[in-house]
Amino acid sequence: MIITVTLNVALDVTYHVPALVPQASHRVVEAVERPGGKGLNVARVLAALGHPVAVTGFAGGPAGEEVRRQLAAATYAGRLTDALVPIAGKTRRTVGVVDGRGRGATQFNEPGPTVGAGEWQALLTAYRDMLAAGADAVALCGSLPPGVPIGAYAELIREARAAGVYVLLDAEGPALRRGLAARPDLLKPNAGELAGLTGFAEPERAARDARRRGARAVAASLGADGMLVLAGDGGWRAAPPVRLTGNPTGAGDSAVAGLLSGLAEGLPWPARLARAVALSAATVLAPAAGEYDPAAYADLLPRVEVVPATS
Amino acid sequence: MIITVTLNVALDVTYHVPALVPQASHRVVEAVERPGGKGLNVARVLAALGHPVAVTGFAGGPAGEEVRRQLAAATYAGRLTDALVPIAGKTRRTVGVVDGRGRGATQFNEPGPTVGAGEWQALLTAYRDMLAAGADAVALCGSLPPGVPIGAYAELIREARAAGVYVLLDAEGPALRRGLAARPDLLKPNAGELAGLTGFAEPERAARDARRRGARAVAASLGADGMLVLAGDGGWRAAPPVRLTGNPTGAGDSAVAGLLSGLAEGLPWPARLARAVALSAATVLAPAAGEYDPAAYADLLPRVEVVPATS
Repeated sequence: MIITVTLNVALDVTYHVPALVPQASHRVVEAVERPGGKGLNVARVLAALGHPVAVTGFAGGPAGEEVRRQLAAATYAGRLTDALVPIAGKTRRTVGVVDGRGRGATQFNEPGPTVGAGEWQALLTAYRDMLAAGADAVALCGSLPPGVPIGAYAELIREARAAGVYVLLDAEGPALRRGLAARPDLLKPNAGELAGLTGFAEPERAARDARRRGARAVAASLGADGMLVLAGDGGWRAAPPVRLTGNPTGAGDSAVAGLLSGLAEGLPWPARLARAVALSAATVLAPAAGEYDPAAYADLLPRVEVVPATS
Repeated sequence: MIITVTLNVALDVTYHVPALVPQASHRVVEAVERPGGKGLNVARVLAALGHPVAVTGFAGGPAGEEVRRQLAAATYAGRLTDALVPIAGKTRRTVGVVDGRGRGATQFNEPGPTVGAGEWQALLTAYRDMLAAGADAVALCGSLPPGVPIGAYAELIREARAAGVYVLLDAEGPALRRGLAARPDLLKPNAGELAGLTGFAEPERAARDARRRGARAVAASLGADGMLVLAGDGGWRAAPPVRLTGNPTGAGDSAVAGLLSGLAEGLPWPARLARAVALSAATVLAPAAGEYDPAAYADLLPRVEVVPATS
């Protein structure tokens, strides 16, 4: 069992329009809704890979109900446990407008609901119970909604470590900085977040610095350059074997699923890294944003070359 | 009691963003949701004017639930009766993106849910019961969702006329053409719809033609030029007394509310027209799209000049 925590759950809506024209009225050809927020994306990929996963975080209002309905109805329902904590506020929606001319999506992200102090305590209680029941790993993913203390990730990391559960952090800004100080087992930033955290643009130098700041290991997404891992027992890089064109939405979340599924299966670091890079690439190549293409994954995985990091 | 029929109900969502940039990601500063669809807009204005009103049409899914929740919670709840018919499909949402630079809204309209044959029959039954209970007028407003027969408005008009209830039609395209043949008491097109229906660009000529095609009276919205009425007992024009700048969303629906509230109060045509023009102008001037500004309405109403139409 892997636990993913998504404090700022979303209902991700994609609107397909022939052409986006500012100040015009558009007839939406197709509207697709699906559960969103980074930890839910990670959970969906884990479940598709065959791993039991429990999702927690906050859900409320009509969009929260729709998220829960879709989680229950999904074909991987048997492997995905909904442990979301109900809140009085309304789960946010995001709207991505996809233009039929093949240009990038135009994204609108609603602010998250305000979480009450009692609701945060309810989540902590549920989280402790899940840790006590036993888990292979926890993934803490994404932004903090208003009302959740800025030290939330630090507290969740301390709880996981006290329970002896491996904990991954994928966050940014102050939530990342505060979480890092609580010493997560793995930090999963992208290149921009890593540079913002450490002040170093060169990824290996920045990853070394992030380890000094508290991360036991660092797995950095480097976009088209693949991923870099620096851990206590070595460092590795891997890049996708083909040049990727497509939608990078969710590629980082698929990488998190690759890393944690490999961990749960007892794979060594190079195999976990190869899986993360292949899943991430198969997500960029998938027709729908945030999904991965299983055939592309099966094709790419044996072709990902993992090399030692230079330092 | 006035009945408004909104077959294609919507939950209208307004996103406020600092600046709309295609292909960029936007943090929504404020998201406002309210019941939408032309007949619900008409009903809200009627209730605000003090008239008892019943709304029917179709509602389903999370957006339909939110529409019903807001209708029940509104301060005019005592005057507004929710007689929406539940459907298995999901009520659509519309998203209007308002740019802080004061430019016009960028609008995205989801397709409506497909209505089943049994659901359409359930609406007809509810509608007949409402007519039998007695009503001053019925307003049939807006587009038809998939699954509703193209002759829906014709059928609803025949039922109203059989019950002796005054019936107004505000539609476009084939639904308008088919409805017109059933002889509504009042047709409320805008200039573009009227020209599209008749082939005449000149409003008075077009309105005369629409009366020949079946409308007992025509009240045409002419944008900044106000309104034109042609009825059996005369013709009148009225324009707003000030130059209007603002958001015209919902101005036509406020005009419908003005016309029907005046009818219910037994006002003669010129007074109904003045009310429609003043309400419409007060809607353009209101800070929120689709609301009207009561102070502006009170100020404008006595200043609207009604003149006989030229023919």
